[in-house]
Amino acid sequence: MCIFSADDEDTFKILIATDVHLGYLEKDAIRGSDSYNTLDEILKCAKTNQVDFILLGGDLFHENKPSRRCLHSCITMMRNYCMGDSPVQFSILSDQTVNFNTTQFPWVNYQDENLNISIPVFSIHGNHDDPTGSEGLCALDLLSASGLVNHFGHSHSVDKIEISPILLQKGSTKLALYGLGSIPDERLYRMFVNNQVTMLRPKEDQDDWFNLFTIHQNRSKHGPTNYIPEQFLDDFLDLVVWGHEHECLIAPSRNERQLFYVTQPGSSVATSLSPGEATKKHIGLLRVKGRKMNLQKIPLKTVRQFFIQDVVLADYEDRFTPETPQVNKKVEDLCYAKVLEMLEEAERERLGCPMTPEKPLIRLRVDYSGGFEAFNTSRFSQKFVDRVANPKDIVHFLRRREQKEDIKDEVNVDYSKLVKTAAAEGLRVEDLVKQYFEAAEQKVQLSLLTEQGMGKAIQEFVDKDEKDAIEELITYQLEKTQRHLQARGVITEQDIDTEIQRFRESKKNTTEEEDEIREVSAAIIKLSDYSNDHVNSIMSCALSNNNIQLEDFGLTHLDFSPIFQDPCMWFIFPLFSASYL
Amino acid sequence: MCIFSADDEDTFKILIATDVHLGYLEKDAIRGSDSYNTLDEILKCAKTNQVDFILLGGDLFHENKPSRRCLHSCITMMRNYCMGDSPVQFSILSDQTVNFNTTQFPWVNYQDENLNISIPVFSIHGNHDDPTGSEGLCALDLLSASGLVNHFGHSHSVDKIEISPILLQKGSTKLALYGLGSIPDERLYRMFVNNQVTMLRPKEDQDDWFNLFTIHQNRSKHGPTNYIPEQFLDDFLDLVVWGHEHECLIAPSRNERQLFYVTQPGSSVATSLSPGEATKKHIGLLRVKGRKMNLQKIPLKTVRQFFIQDVVLADYEDRFTPETPQVNKKVEDLCYAKVLEMLEEAERERLGCPMTPEKPLIRLRVDYSGGFEAFNTSRFSQKFVDRVANPKDIVHFLRRREQKEDIKDEVNVDYSKLVKTAAAEGLRVEDLVKQYFEAAEQKVQLSLLTEQGMGKAIQEFVDKDEKDAIEELITYQLEKTQRHLQARGVITEQDIDTEIQRFRESKKNTTEEEDEIREVSAAIIKLSDYSNDHVNSIMSCALSNNNIQLEDFGLTHLDFSPIFQDPCMWFIFPLFSASYL
Repeated sequence: MCIFSADDEDTFKILIATDVHLGYLEKDAIRGSDSYNTLDEILKCAKTNQVDFILLGGDLFHENKPSRRCLHSCITMMRNYCMGDSPVQFSILSDQTVNFNTTQFPWVNYQDENLNISIPVFSIHGNHDDPTGSEGLCALDLLSASGLVNHFGHSHSVDKIEISPILLQKGSTKLALYGLGSIPDERLYRMFVNNQVTMLRPKEDQDDWFNLFTIHQNRSKHGPTNYIPEQFLDDFLDLVVWGHEHECLIAPSRNERQLFYVTQPGSSVATSLSPGEATKKHIGLLRVKGRKMNLQKIPLKTVRQFFIQDVVLADYEDRFTPETPQVNKKVEDLCYAKVLEMLEEAERERLGCPMTPEKPLIRLRVDYSGGFEAFNTSRFSQKFVDRVANPKDIVHFLRRREQKEDIKDEVNVDYSKLVKTAAAEGLRVEDLVKQYFEAAEQKVQLSLLTEQGMGKAIQEFVDKDEKDAIEELITYQLEKTQRHLQARGVITEQDIDTEIQRFRESKKNTTEEEDEIREVSAAIIKLSDYSNDHVNSIMSCALSNNNIQLEDFGLTHLDFSPIFQDPCMWFIFPLFSASYL
Repeated sequence: MCIFSADDEDTFKILIATDVHLGYLEKDAIRGSDSYNTLDEILKCAKTNQVDFILLGGDLFHENKPSRRCLHSCITMMRNYCMGDSPVQFSILSDQTVNFNTTQFPWVNYQDENLNISIPVFSIHGNHDDPTGSEGLCALDLLSASGLVNHFGHSHSVDKIEISPILLQKGSTKLALYGLGSIPDERLYRMFVNNQVTMLRPKEDQDDWFNLFTIHQNRSKHGPTNYIPEQFLDDFLDLVVWGHEHECLIAPSRNERQLFYVTQPGSSVATSLSPGEATKKHIGLLRVKGRKMNLQKIPLKTVRQFFIQDVVLADYEDRFTPETPQVNKKVEDLCYAKVLEMLEEAERERLGCPMTPEKPLIRLRVDYSGGFEAFNTSRFSQKFVDRVANPKDIVHFLRRREQKEDIKDEVNVDYSKLVKTAAAEGLRVEDLVKQYFEAAEQKVQLSLLTEQGMGKAIQEFVDKDEKDAIEELITYQLEKTQRHLQARGVITEQDIDTEIQRFRESKKNTTEEEDEIREVSAAIIKLSDYSNDHVNSIMSCALSNNNIQLEDFGLTHLDFSPIFQDPCMWFIFPLFSASYL
């Protein structure tokens, strides 16, 4: 890498970050400032490193309509760090009225004669801060109108996209910057399949350009058409900066088919307590000279530590079984020790890192399959209230092992299991729905599953016509859920809140505020009679409020009752309410 | 005025405007762009006249939390008109860290080395766009952080205010600019009375300064302590720019006691259909040279015309009486003619004014006292749907004359009449409540009023102890209201909406959106049993939601039922919901 030994007038220095989620949990007494502190760190880092520009991969804001504090802080930080006298060292060769055709000031901010910009910020929008309303404006557009951000990659069309790169030149290096703001994955997938996505290229000297593309979509396969396969992207690209995925996989990985590299910086704040968010968070300092590049990982120091561990109770046969006297106490002691272990590790790691917040995020996933019982987590949490940033939801009980054993390969209509798997794998609701109905359509006989009663329902499922069978299945599931709720004592608003909180935390990209969660739980409580009509009307309302079309999922009719009734499915609601679709 | 014959290097040129209410009715198909067009006109006017700065008297935004469109438009317009190369010709002598002590960038925007400002905007906040939340931020602060507005006159203290002027100098002219953002009138009144408002003055050459003060409060007396008497203001002032009041009374009026002038520019968009809003709207071009001033009125061309006329049916005895056959038809014909008259006048006036919107606002107030009946306004409106901007509420029926005759001078406990008078005089709910209870406290015998039943109630009112008497009075009023509602057929949601709409329109400064109005009407409908408890719990909720303390009205206990029950009182709810307290 000798060509990058010294920064010179031919080398672009680009700070790369994504999914800042400014404003995430901003009302939380402990974590409220996390996202703000990290944006500050990112901008300071850009300034210290004298980068040519900052490239953001979407979701700068956590909320589609950021709070006043959030907007005010963002504007203030950008004005503090990105304005100043250091001259910008690159020029723009492309037609800016095309590059920025959805903004009121269709030129790059540093060329505006009324603004003194030292570090231009280029950003696409994410699914959290996506454009809404008849004007198609997003939060980023307020910063764009203020001259603080260059919002690009915003396509107005919903069925055909032409991406015109911003053509940048610094010394002898030519950089073509492509961007595509977030679009529902299924829709974009269709567009790619139908050849409706075109990436334009400069007419002359095509081989001289370094081609950089920023995208904000599902990268991992969340369903058959609910992600963007890397091979959909043009092979002339050199590097893809992939936003939306929160796990930091910033070291460029080579796609051997398309012969380009992909860097996935990941979010700069953990918005869920899933394993992906526990990966150490970084931003990148990308250097481009000619067609060569180098990506330097820069660890973020202000990010709150997050430790996650899995415990499978059945693995501790030597210490206890479900029959052991006082097994609950022993399980709790084990968990206590595990949490302490993580806390000590966190403390060691934090030594000499004054910018790291004191209280870490801790998650212990306890697989209690095999007859164990869950202990009282609120009493457990109480012990860590002064040492952990998320005392209320440290322990997460699940029954993964049992499911894995029971899942049949051929068809799976036990959606409660499906969902648990889905939650673990990060699947999305539309996939679940699709899978459920695909399974139903096959009408094949299923082997008897473990629980009593299921056999009968499934038998009818294949004997009768589909519609009735589903109804039967639903009725069965309703009864089961009702028993399940009663057995777990999930009858108070608080309990339901806790349940929702769990599923919310276990799910990436759930965007809702406390109020909305509370609203959902209130709705659930009202459904004490488990009436199908009631359930469906609430769901229809939620769908239409969010402009969701069933057709988007390839469905014409949907009965949401089973999804609604199963507490395991409740994490769906925040998703439906979210504006990511 | 020869000293102003030519603008010179010693003359400040200041564009004065207030109550722009950007975003007012922005979703209305006809009037949605009105407030935007007029802000554009105002800023263009400032640029054309090459003013030194713009001074805004508050309520730049109609909503405390303006929509994205609203913020985006405002930022875009300000950036378009207020940035540029024309150098700013005055300097600032005061300590700006004191003048702008509530902002993140405590210096005037045109001195920021990263911004190229040609027209600085100075603004206080109004009651509509006042600071909220723990950070005490208002919408103006987003523009201030963006460097587009200089937000001043924001005091953090709630019981003591010290106003430090921004000291400006242009050539030999010295201008001390004082500002005070909106504060609840009662509170500010108390502070003045308790000598807790101090206006600081420069230590040296005090007599050389022209002292200009901007305030956003009630100017007309809305209640004993619910306004700011001009004589509260220091007599060293030269000119007061009074915001909040929507009637354009821009020609400076002299306060003979304090020997200063007051200019009341008025709103630049009509936010109600009251007579004050019908006055032709202007902004001002203020010139200050030494201690002399000149205020040039500039008519606004983009403002939608508004014509209002009163018709007293009893005055048309020669044409009809309540007994005349087909009197309703004749009344309707009369009203039709009146509206046509106004429309023709509007058309004549609009000739040669291409910037004036085509459809005027029209209001016909019909006093149908004396036994006349109201006709169907929706059918009437239908006739003007293509020619009037407010077809749904052209006609407003009222019974003013009858009230005036009946009102007794001594004590008035018929709050339905009180309110009608109040609505006409622009009184506020706290005054009404106070008057009602003051009346109750006097316990004097009242003369028998016209309506049957009232006599008995009032008799008991004085015979029994106060608490019971009030209860009696309420019960009586409830029954009366119920009859009243039934008689008028006010039983559907639509009817109630119409009622509320009427009262809303008749009241200045009601700020609520359709949704909130609808919420109130829904609440009213739920009160089908007219239960006192129900009424009171709703009112208490409304109060606590708005952080209103009964003590603020000098009351310890309050039964809101009568207020709530009388449709004439419903305009109160939007007021209570408004954040002006």
